[in-house]
Amino acid sequence: MRKTVIGVMGPGNATERDRYHAYELGQRIATAGWVLLTGGRNVGVMDAASRGAKEAGGLTVGILPTADAQGVSEAVDLAIITGMGSARNNINILSSDVVIACGMSTGTASEAALALNANKPLILLTDASESQQFFTSLSPQSLWLAANPEEAIALVKMVLAQSRQA
Amino acid sequence: MRKTVIGVMGPGNATERDRYHAYELGQRIATAGWVLLTGGRNVGVMDAASRGAKEAGGLTVGILPTADAQGVSEAVDLAIITGMGSARNNINILSSDVVIACGMSTGTASEAALALNANKPLILLTDASESQQFFTSLSPQSLWLAANPEEAIALVKMVLAQSRQA
Amino acid sequence: MRKTVIGVMGPGNATERDRYHAYELGQRIATAGWVLLTGGRNVGVMDAASRGAKEAGGLTVGILPTADAQGVSEAVDLAIITGMGSARNNINILSSDVVIACGMSTGTASEAALALNANKPLILLTDASESQQFFTSLSPQSLWLAANPEEAIALVKMVLAQSRQA
Amino acid sequence: MRKTVIGVMGPGNATERDRYHAYELGQRIATAGWVLLTGGRNVGVMDAASRGAKEAGGLTVGILPTADAQGVSEAVDLAIITGMGSARNNINILSSDVVIACGMSTGTASEAALALNANKPLILLTDASESQQFFTSLSPQSLWLAANPEEAIALVKMVLAQSRQA
Repeated sequence: MRKTVIGVMGPGNATERDRYHAYELGQRIATAGWVLLTGGRNVGVMDAASRGAKEAGGLTVGILPTADAQGVSEAVDLAIITGMGSARNNINILSSDVVIACGMSTGTASEAALALNANKPLILLTDASESQQFFTSLSPQSLWLAANPEEAIALVKMVLAQSRQA
Repeated sequence: MRKTVIGVMGPGNATERDRYHAYELGQRIATAGWVLLTGGRNVGVMDAASRGAKEAGGLTVGILPTADAQGVSEAVDLAIITGMGSARNNINILSSDVVIACGMSTGTASEAALALNANKPLILLTDASESQQFFTSLSPQSLWLAANPEEAIALVKMVLAQSRQA
Repeated sequence: MRKTVIGVMGPGNATERDRYHAYELGQRIATAGWVLLTGGRNVGVMDAASRGAKEAGGLTVGILPTADAQGVSEAVDLAIITGMGSARNNINILSSDVVIACGMSTGTASEAALALNANKPLILLTDASESQQFFTSLSPQSLWLAANPEEAIALVKMVLAQSRQA
Repeated sequence: MRKTVIGVMGPGNATERDRYHAYELGQRIATAGWVLLTGGRNVGVMDAASRGAKEAGGLTVGILPTADAQGVSEAVDLAIITGMGSARNNINILSSDVVIACGMSTGTASEAALALNANKPLILLTDASESQQFFTSLSPQSLWLAANPEEAIALVKMVLAQSRQA
C-alpha cells in the first residue's frame, strides 16, 4: 500500500542553520514512519535531510536532475534519475503529500511556487520575511509558516489528518 | 539562423492591467523583429501577448502544458505540445533569450524563479512590492524591474546588446 | 492561426542515403507551406532535413535535448530548449501533425513507438525489413510505409486531408 | 546506500501469459533483494509485477504518467507522480539498473528503444520474432533474449556481476 511521502526542498548551497534544520526534519519524518523525498543531491538541505532520515532508520528517495547517479547523496536509498534538470522540480512536488521548504534559493522558490500551483500543502521554514510575505501574497490557503522543525512536523501531522478526513 | 526569442510569462487568470501590458509587450516584441514565446493557452497574459504580437505581424510560439492543442490561443502560430503540465515551465525559460514576468501568480512565480536559477535575464513588470522584494532578495544580478511595457522592452534591448558583446 | 507541423525524425549518426532523403523531405515540406520540426541537432537527419527546408524558404523548429543552444543546427530558426534529454522525444511527437521516421536508430525507434502510442500518423521511410515488420506488428492502423520522399509527402497530404474531414 | 533497481516494462493491456511472467518476475526480483520499478498503473504487466514483488515482501516503485495517484496499483509502495505522460518512460529507464521488457506494445517499445539509447542493459522476454529481430538489429551489444522469467533473472544477475567488475 502506498506510503506517505514528505518532501523537503531547500538550497544545495545552504546555510549551516538550514542544514541543521533539514537534518532534524529528516529524523522526525523517519520517526513518524513517513518516506522522505528530496532533490537527491549530495549537498545542502537535500543531503542533510537524507542523512537525518537514515540516522533514524527511515526510507529516503532522491529525485535527481541528472541523467545518471553521479552526485547522489550517500544517504539516498532510492534514486529516481530524471535527466530533466530543473523540470524535475515539478515531480518533487507532485510526488509529495506535503512539502516543506527549508531555507530559500531560486530552485527552492520554484518548488514552493509549483507546490502552491498544484494545491499541495506547503510549509515554509525560513526566517526571511521577503519569502514569507511573497508566498503569503500568492496563496494563503494552503501555506503555513513554521518557526522550527518541531513546528513544521506538527503542521504536517495536522495537514495529513485533515486530508484523511476530507 | 536562430531567431531571438522573448518569453512573456504571466497569469492565466490575469487582471485587466496585466492583459493590457501583455498586449503591448507582444506588439513591441513583434515590432522589434523578435519571436514571442508564451505558455500558449487561450487565457490571460499568454493570450493577450500573443494577440498583440500577431496584430503587429510577429511570429508567436506557445509551449502548451497539455497533451493536445485544445485550449491553445488562436493567436499562437506554432504550438509546442508537451503533455508535461507545469514541468513545461522550465522549457519556457530555457527557450527564451530574455524573460519578462508580466503580473504574478503561482505559475508565473515558478517561471521567474526558474529563470534566475538558469541565469536567464529576468524583467519583472509588476507593481506588487512583495514580488519585487522577494526576487530581488534571491538574485539581484540578473533581475531588472520595469514600470511599464516600454521600459521592459528598453531593458530587453540593453540585455541583448550586452550578451552580444560578451 | 496554428500552422501545420510535420516532424522528421531520424538518426544523428545517419547514412548518406538517409541524409539525402531527409534533405529532400525538408525541401518538400517547406514547399508545401508546412513547418518542419526535428530534434534540432547539427547532425544527421535533423540537420539535413532542416537544411532542405531552409533552402526552400521554410520555417524550421528544433526541439533540443540539451539545456542550451550549443549543438543546434545552423538551419534551425526556432530552437526549443528542453534540457530533458531523450524525454523530449515525446514532445517531438505530440507537437507534430504527422511524423516521418527517416532511417532508424534507438532514438528514432523510441519516437516511432511514441507516435503510435499517441495515435499520431506515422510514415516509415526505411528499407530495413526488421523495422517495417516490427512497427507493422505493433499498430497497423496509423502506420504507412514509404519507398521514397515523394511517396512520404503524398502520404502526408492524404493523412492531412483525412484528418480535416474527420 | 543506494539500492539496486530492476525495471519491468510491459503492456497495460497485457496477455494472461505476460501477466503471469510479470508476476513471477516481481517475485524473483523481491526475493533477490532488489527494488522493483514499473510504470505504476493498476493494469497489465505493471500491476502483476508489483503484486508479485509485494507477495514476496519486496519494495515496489511506480513512476506514474498522471498528475495524481489515481490509477496507481495497490501493490505500489512508492508512487512517483510525474504528470508527464509518456515522457516519463525515459525516467523509468534511467532509474533502472537493468530493464526487462515483458511482452510488447507501443509504450513498451518506446521504453526498450530508450534503454538501448541510454546503453542500459535490456532483457527481452517475449515470443514475438518481430520484436526480437528488430531490437537485435538496433543494438546487439546490450540486449539479451530470455525464454522465461527464470532465465531473465539469471541474465540480470550476470549483468549486475559484470557491471560491478567494470
